[in-house]
Amino acid sequence: MLFKSGLSGSTFSKIVFFNRPMDPKMINTFNAYSKAVDQRSKGAAEAAKYGALGVIVRSMNLRLDDFPHTGGMSYGGLSDAMKIPAAAVSTNHANFLSTTLKLNPSLKFYFKQNCRTLADVPSHNVIGEIRGSEFPEEIIVIGGHLDSWDVGDGAHDDGAGCVQSMAVLEILKKLNYTPKRTIRVVMFMNEENGLRGGTAYAKRAVELGEQHIFALESDSGGFTPRGFSFDASAANMSQIMEWKVLFEPYMAHTFTEGGSGADIGPLKNEGIVLAGLRPDSQRYFDHHHAATDTFDAVNKRELDMGSAAMTALVYLFDRYGLEAAEIK
Amino acid sequence: MLFKSGLSGSTFSKIVFFNRPMDPKMINTFNAYSKAVDQRSKGAAEAAKYGALGVIVRSMNLRLDDFPHTGGMSYGGLSDAMKIPAAAVSTNHANFLSTTLKLNPSLKFYFKQNCRTLADVPSHNVIGEIRGSEFPEEIIVIGGHLDSWDVGDGAHDDGAGCVQSMAVLEILKKLNYTPKRTIRVVMFMNEENGLRGGTAYAKRAVELGEQHIFALESDSGGFTPRGFSFDASAANMSQIMEWKVLFEPYMAHTFTEGGSGADIGPLKNEGIVLAGLRPDSQRYFDHHHAATDTFDAVNKRELDMGSAAMTALVYLFDRYGLEAAEIK
Repeated sequence: MLFKSGLSGSTFSKIVFFNRPMDPKMINTFNAYSKAVDQRSKGAAEAAKYGALGVIVRSMNLRLDDFPHTGGMSYGGLSDAMKIPAAAVSTNHANFLSTTLKLNPSLKFYFKQNCRTLADVPSHNVIGEIRGSEFPEEIIVIGGHLDSWDVGDGAHDDGAGCVQSMAVLEILKKLNYTPKRTIRVVMFMNEENGLRGGTAYAKRAVELGEQHIFALESDSGGFTPRGFSFDASAANMSQIMEWKVLFEPYMAHTFTEGGSGADIGPLKNEGIVLAGLRPDSQRYFDHHHAATDTFDAVNKRELDMGSAAMTALVYLFDRYGLEAAEIK
Repeated sequence: MLFKSGLSGSTFSKIVFFNRPMDPKMINTFNAYSKAVDQRSKGAAEAAKYGALGVIVRSMNLRLDDFPHTGGMSYGGLSDAMKIPAAAVSTNHANFLSTTLKLNPSLKFYFKQNCRTLADVPSHNVIGEIRGSEFPEEIIVIGGHLDSWDVGDGAHDDGAGCVQSMAVLEILKKLNYTPKRTIRVVMFMNEENGLRGGTAYAKRAVELGEQHIFALESDSGGFTPRGFSFDASAANMSQIMEWKVLFEPYMAHTFTEGGSGADIGPLKNEGIVLAGLRPDSQRYFDHHHAATDTFDAVNKRELDMGSAAMTALVYLFDRYGLEAAEIK
């Protein structure tokens, strides 16, 4: 998959902007992001309608720093002639630009971009699994996404989720646990720029007639886990809430309803539970889609706590399936 | 107060080793620390009894790095003639030393120290307060400690606690809140090496006949808050547990019984509630008493979340005093 440097003047065929669940009771940085990110995603299209020649977008992070925050944007239905260039600047540079323009309103601002959209090339999801010993046809999927915005390493978004997903299988093997159901790790391709990996995976699952009972995604950073969000039927949700207390050791016992992960979203149907790991969000936007999303910003213990909590959840779905009362 | 570089051959008159509460249900790095730290605190005294010439102690942190972890130690009742030198080495260096000794058992290990204990000099607690408007004689104390081990900045231990304590008064002032009771910030001196600031403060409070109703310490790092621990009577504890739900927005709603903070410990009597802020512990021992305890390792949002939670708790004690039912 090709990555894009910063915002470009190209049109993305399909943009997935944000799919993280939010708990209104808690101070969650995703709340601010989701309310402000339309300036990045739709700002150029809106400004073009009013005759703008280009847009410079203040970065969607929460601190003053020098690292521009990149990410998807779209021109909606605008004709090529209407499209204007768009770029992100860091919060420090946005403040400087704003102050300077106030002091000197006749100031001229010039910017030049060298990004472009190349033709698509084939790419792949990466999949590994342990085949179930009793109910191999019942599939549990755990995943993150392999692609990232290329300004950093993509360590939190979403190297962390890929590593945690692989760790679930590693932990189960270290425990000599034989899964009853098939546990499959999927590292999805192209989450950031169209969700093609997740879409293709779900389409193929339907073609093969595969039965997915549970899908869990980690795509909110490798920080200390706080809990999980679930997209599940009321009956399944009441089963899940009985397990909540078991997650206290990992401090991941805040269970909320609604939302899971972008890549597993296309798997949604009546017969599946979708879930997302919900780590502490306070540091996420210090790194998200920026040059600061690097390996050294991931703390091993925090990452491991998330892997452990994910393994516990996967174990419960493997052990009990979707009917808590009936222990298979 | 004089700080000591690493471990020294001197005797500390009084050592406070650890006073952080632990929740047995949760994975808390303080558990491992409290079980292992006797190797640092008493290792030299024990080894000397068996004829050791010196001790090299593996650092009490949780990751492999190059930063020795320092801290208090004591020779107990050993005579000066029996005292042997003691030093800390990093985990990487401990592994290297151990491996090398295994490969070559006749290897000689030489170490030289240049630390010494200077005579005491006067030092001070730093105190500021907002006088209560209705019950000025009822005192609420919030604090951290000013001293630190000098290998780093002491940013988490306990610059964070000092800043958070001052922030409580700042936040109350910004909110134009007029406290009913006296809210006093105390930055205690000499926590690490004898607790003289906390001891002197409590002694002076008795001499002045001051009535402290609540004391809150932050001395477990400036990380995302998880809750508070309380040292309180059963009646006060049942009042406090009713407030727990109010702390969900700050994600600081894990309320546990037992333990508060070292500096406020000497204030303990039947008429006071003691409490400690309990932040997430996963990263604490990457920094504790080491050269890595620096300003850049403190995340502003995480620190602010703790200050906000502390302010909410102080507000409740100011508003309602020690009888929940009777709103003064």
